[in-house]
Amino acid sequence: MNFASDNWAGATPEVMAALHRANDGAAPAYGNDALTRRVTGLFSEVFETDVQVWFTGTGTASNSLGLAALSRPGGLVFCSSEAHIHVDEWGATEFQSQGMKLVAVPQAAGRMAPEALAEMMARYPEGSRYGVPVALSLTNATELGTVYAPAGVQALTGLARARGLAVHMDGARFGNAVAASGATPAELTWKAGVDFLSFGGTKNGCWAAEAIVVFAPDRLHDLAARRQRAGHTFSKARFVAAQFEAYLTDGNWLRWARAANARAEQLRAGLRGTGPAWLGWESEANEVFAVLPRAAIAAVRAAGGTLYEWPAEAMGGQLGPDEDLVRLVTSWATTADEVERFLSLVG
Amino acid sequence: MNFASDNWAGATPEVMAALHRANDGAAPAYGNDALTRRVTGLFSEVFETDVQVWFTGTGTASNSLGLAALSRPGGLVFCSSEAHIHVDEWGATEFQSQGMKLVAVPQAAGRMAPEALAEMMARYPEGSRYGVPVALSLTNATELGTVYAPAGVQALTGLARARGLAVHMDGARFGNAVAASGATPAELTWKAGVDFLSFGGTKNGCWAAEAIVVFAPDRLHDLAARRQRAGHTFSKARFVAAQFEAYLTDGNWLRWARAANARAEQLRAGLRGTGPAWLGWESEANEVFAVLPRAAIAAVRAAGGTLYEWPAEAMGGQLGPDEDLVRLVTSWATTADEVERFLSLVG
Amino acid sequence: MNFASDNWAGATPEVMAALHRANDGAAPAYGNDALTRRVTGLFSEVFETDVQVWFTGTGTASNSLGLAALSRPGGLVFCSSEAHIHVDEWGATEFQSQGMKLVAVPQAAGRMAPEALAEMMARYPEGSRYGVPVALSLTNATELGTVYAPAGVQALTGLARARGLAVHMDGARFGNAVAASGATPAELTWKAGVDFLSFGGTKNGCWAAEAIVVFAPDRLHDLAARRQRAGHTFSKARFVAAQFEAYLTDGNWLRWARAANARAEQLRAGLRGTGPAWLGWESEANEVFAVLPRAAIAAVRAAGGTLYEWPAEAMGGQLGPDEDLVRLVTSWATTADEVERFLSLVG
Amino acid sequence: MNFASDNWAGATPEVMAALHRANDGAAPAYGNDALTRRVTGLFSEVFETDVQVWFTGTGTASNSLGLAALSRPGGLVFCSSEAHIHVDEWGATEFQSQGMKLVAVPQAAGRMAPEALAEMMARYPEGSRYGVPVALSLTNATELGTVYAPAGVQALTGLARARGLAVHMDGARFGNAVAASGATPAELTWKAGVDFLSFGGTKNGCWAAEAIVVFAPDRLHDLAARRQRAGHTFSKARFVAAQFEAYLTDGNWLRWARAANARAEQLRAGLRGTGPAWLGWESEANEVFAVLPRAAIAAVRAAGGTLYEWPAEAMGGQLGPDEDLVRLVTSWATTADEVERFLSLVG
Repeated sequence: MNFASDNWAGATPEVMAALHRANDGAAPAYGNDALTRRVTGLFSEVFETDVQVWFTGTGTASNSLGLAALSRPGGLVFCSSEAHIHVDEWGATEFQSQGMKLVAVPQAAGRMAPEALAEMMARYPEGSRYGVPVALSLTNATELGTVYAPAGVQALTGLARARGLAVHMDGARFGNAVAASGATPAELTWKAGVDFLSFGGTKNGCWAAEAIVVFAPDRLHDLAARRQRAGHTFSKARFVAAQFEAYLTDGNWLRWARAANARAEQLRAGLRGTGPAWLGWESEANEVFAVLPRAAIAAVRAAGGTLYEWPAEAMGGQLGPDEDLVRLVTSWATTADEVERFLSLVG
Repeated sequence: MNFASDNWAGATPEVMAALHRANDGAAPAYGNDALTRRVTGLFSEVFETDVQVWFTGTGTASNSLGLAALSRPGGLVFCSSEAHIHVDEWGATEFQSQGMKLVAVPQAAGRMAPEALAEMMARYPEGSRYGVPVALSLTNATELGTVYAPAGVQALTGLARARGLAVHMDGARFGNAVAASGATPAELTWKAGVDFLSFGGTKNGCWAAEAIVVFAPDRLHDLAARRQRAGHTFSKARFVAAQFEAYLTDGNWLRWARAANARAEQLRAGLRGTGPAWLGWESEANEVFAVLPRAAIAAVRAAGGTLYEWPAEAMGGQLGPDEDLVRLVTSWATTADEVERFLSLVG
Repeated sequence: MNFASDNWAGATPEVMAALHRANDGAAPAYGNDALTRRVTGLFSEVFETDVQVWFTGTGTASNSLGLAALSRPGGLVFCSSEAHIHVDEWGATEFQSQGMKLVAVPQAAGRMAPEALAEMMARYPEGSRYGVPVALSLTNATELGTVYAPAGVQALTGLARARGLAVHMDGARFGNAVAASGATPAELTWKAGVDFLSFGGTKNGCWAAEAIVVFAPDRLHDLAARRQRAGHTFSKARFVAAQFEAYLTDGNWLRWARAANARAEQLRAGLRGTGPAWLGWESEANEVFAVLPRAAIAAVRAAGGTLYEWPAEAMGGQLGPDEDLVRLVTSWATTADEVERFLSLVG
Repeated sequence: MNFASDNWAGATPEVMAALHRANDGAAPAYGNDALTRRVTGLFSEVFETDVQVWFTGTGTASNSLGLAALSRPGGLVFCSSEAHIHVDEWGATEFQSQGMKLVAVPQAAGRMAPEALAEMMARYPEGSRYGVPVALSLTNATELGTVYAPAGVQALTGLARARGLAVHMDGARFGNAVAASGATPAELTWKAGVDFLSFGGTKNGCWAAEAIVVFAPDRLHDLAARRQRAGHTFSKARFVAAQFEAYLTDGNWLRWARAANARAEQLRAGLRGTGPAWLGWESEANEVFAVLPRAAIAAVRAAGGTLYEWPAEAMGGQLGPDEDLVRLVTSWATTADEVERFLSLVG
């Protein structure tokens, strides 16, 4: 009954099997091996265009190295006020970029409205004393479980393009976004104006498989050098490549994401009723935000279940005195039984 | 017949088995799991003292984060002119430390002589315009295949201590050093004056298992924050822990290192004769430097063998017109047959 | 009729005279001269305690080097949403500190209320995923012309102290704050819980005279090295020392600040009436924020006057369709006649 | 009898007079004033081509900001082993550039021979594991008092150009180089393959007047942002502009440099004989390196004279047991009498 995070799950059998297959004999280091080449080809197939692929160790590394590679010291990056790069990465982007600033845009359930972005961008006109806007970063699926459809992405990237900004997408849960939206990976990214994507496999069935997928290579500079000196150039790169091979083959990644999303929907369905536990807001991917009586939280924990308390301000003043907001995350490994047990405990 | 590098080898069966064992059910992320705790205990046993253990993604990350955590901006770090941190890491230490400078000390076969270190340190007296010496970094086994015994480490760290410097050891091939020296891990490190160690498992049978092992925690500052913002805090940390569990259990790591060293000695033995191929210098760990006729190099490559050409200046003017210096690296996976085939090709 | 900024004024005659006196013969470089020593003594007299004094080239340098010297990578700094370090310095603190993040606290007329600071600090509890709070930075006089009295400073620093935070004061207009508050320099700083101060002379009658004044030297690390590598260690440091000598002697700095404040009060008095031009809010130092009919702004400019349009959002929705918010800054050089002319143009 | 450094001298009367002239009334801040524009025009005249001019506070700032603006993370910069950027700036270039590495090229009396540069560059071939060469930095006049003539500059920049490197010149004593070489500023810089120059006025009669002069603006990126966040954008920029106005008008700077050079030649002439004090090596600009009996050094100091002891290794083993190597620097303010007194004391 683990709902603490999708990164508490292990790796899928397919990923383990691919690691075994890749573990045969010697292979060139630092990504010069045949498997890494083949996997790069898989990425290009999945995205229906030629892409550059840079493996890294974590999503934080992908986000911060990619944004830093825009190579605009002192630049401003617009992102949602709940963006992982802004609230969870301990200044990684500021660090790698040598001082870029993140400008937090108000969001609702994790999504920036085009109007909110436009208003914030207007506060940073050309030539102002506030610095130079250089990028927009959006997360899909968002940190609050919601998903941008292609039109939603495009509404934001259109504003960015009009100001000449580069566009980054944090795709730590990109598989869940694709699965939930029904759109193709291409439609959610480069066809909708995204220049580069932090593509995460770790939360969706891998051990440690993260990559920067670049659609507009002219916008990013010196990624090889930046990654090397940041210590993210793995010598035995095939251990990442193997994970991605299993991930991208036969649509496995979307199958796993759909499974996680389905378990989340099962949770949401169980919380939409009139019981003491209720949905904080509707979401579409594998994160569910629920308001629970404190006693219910205690009951879940007493039964060995895990979940994560979320700052109450996200609900404005709607919480009752004995209630808390919690985040529930499902993964490829979550079972329908686990969800049922949880619902029966909090119902 | 892979002698290109020990990082061309895969993972050992024991490491793969441990990954399987660890892949059971959910576990807390970011190193808060039971396995990571247990493995930290293993490190303390191996080093016969309580140590802090910080997993990272690569040796470059360990070296640069550790040195940066000395938190001495503008500081000077003494290291050998062949040190990996100086010649192979694309400025990682300068980057992470925000501008520390590395001072290259002359070496012979990779080892700094105490006299050479003393002479270089004397050029940077207290209060000089050249900056403030803050650390000594030494590599064991060295980048040129040789090994410092405990007395050799102590002769250098004694000089460092006398000036109040911190001491770092780059142990990318620490297992090979322990195996070759016959000393204990403790004797080669904290008992000999080392404050923190980049402990590498990747080259010796793991996929990606690197850690900063800290003996003197008072000297390093904010490692948690530094690692987090550098993107080296793995969410599914148990995948590193599992590798180290296999590595450190039952002395596996030393068994694998001894195997690699033995194959290197087999190479050296075959090259010590009077044939056209000869040893550039004597080494003790799993790197062998040999002078080969170019035709022999071509023959090895034609037979599918791999090796790495090394800058000729390491040999002074001793190379003949048709000779090149090469580096041969053995690993846990190298077989006696491979070595025999190689020797027969170059003999 | 210059109201664009106090940094449009030149240097006072006293400062020029001191530069002449200091320009006699040779003197040791890099701050090792007798005048620099003497001036450091003046600072200690003015602040009634032994202080460390570090000259820098600009207020941005003082702010960013001082905060960076807290030496807490990944740390969080609370400051007002209008803080110069947050909105005007192009990421200088993020850059010098290698990635600290600034957390913007809501303000009213430039001042943070203790409640607003407390609420924001509460969102960053100990051990959270958001990073580690390390400092509070407050500006006095504030960027919006208001002034914290000693009790106001203490109310904020008390909250900071309770969490172990260091406290920085941006004193780009510290003289104006002292003059306006009637408090002593000591009462506004270390006696009220401030650890280090960016002490600015440039805007108040110097050419380029800025310093970090340190009350709690144990909190700041490696300032000498940080300043040196940032290029802020002037070789002919006596040219800064001379300016500060004139500045601090005979209370000149407070005389000049009082003059500037008096001209600002003259402006405010003229705008408090019922005319078409009106005060945006009350301020106490040498910055005045006024709402003017656009025609009046044009008239001032046509007459050769200068002023600075300020983002309208500071007034909420109170502006009429033909009105703009402007900032008017007075300096030691502003005359009563200039103010009268301005008021007659906008009246 | 100050021979410690040219930065122990004050400012020339012409510079003080220009500061007075500039101190009249209000002027736009941050370099938007008429004087700064006029002075930029003077630079273009002096260099016989349109140049960009960026004022900074120190030569260290010019060097490090300029090299950092090449915007090549992880890049390698070739410079002489005596280069100020390498041995005197506490890692400023490593810091501003976020980790560039400096590669020290052997020099003789401060000058790199083309052969030495070529040999060092050959150790860093394209695509090597050692990083990417991105720039050559040479100093003129050199740190050891010698001067490159245009052909000498061109011999080095030709090698750099052939590898696509950018070329930086550290001109902390550029006036002395121009005066000593008889070449024009253009011949010593852009006509000889230099892309940008750290142009120093401080050592040659100014208080604090340094600038990055850019001949190839396409090579440098985001200098405005880099300078701003580094705290080197002076608000009252006219105080720098005024100094440069006096400096560049009527050839004043070359007159002052010729005076300093002449006093240095007077020193050299007095030391070329057969007395107990002798020239370490011949130089051409305003730095003289001499070997003195220790008793003579003591005599100079007893008479109130200043000089700087220089590391003895620069002389190989040529020093007698009672001798030391010293550096003597002359400035615009040095008098023939001072030189005579010095020579009589050491003769």
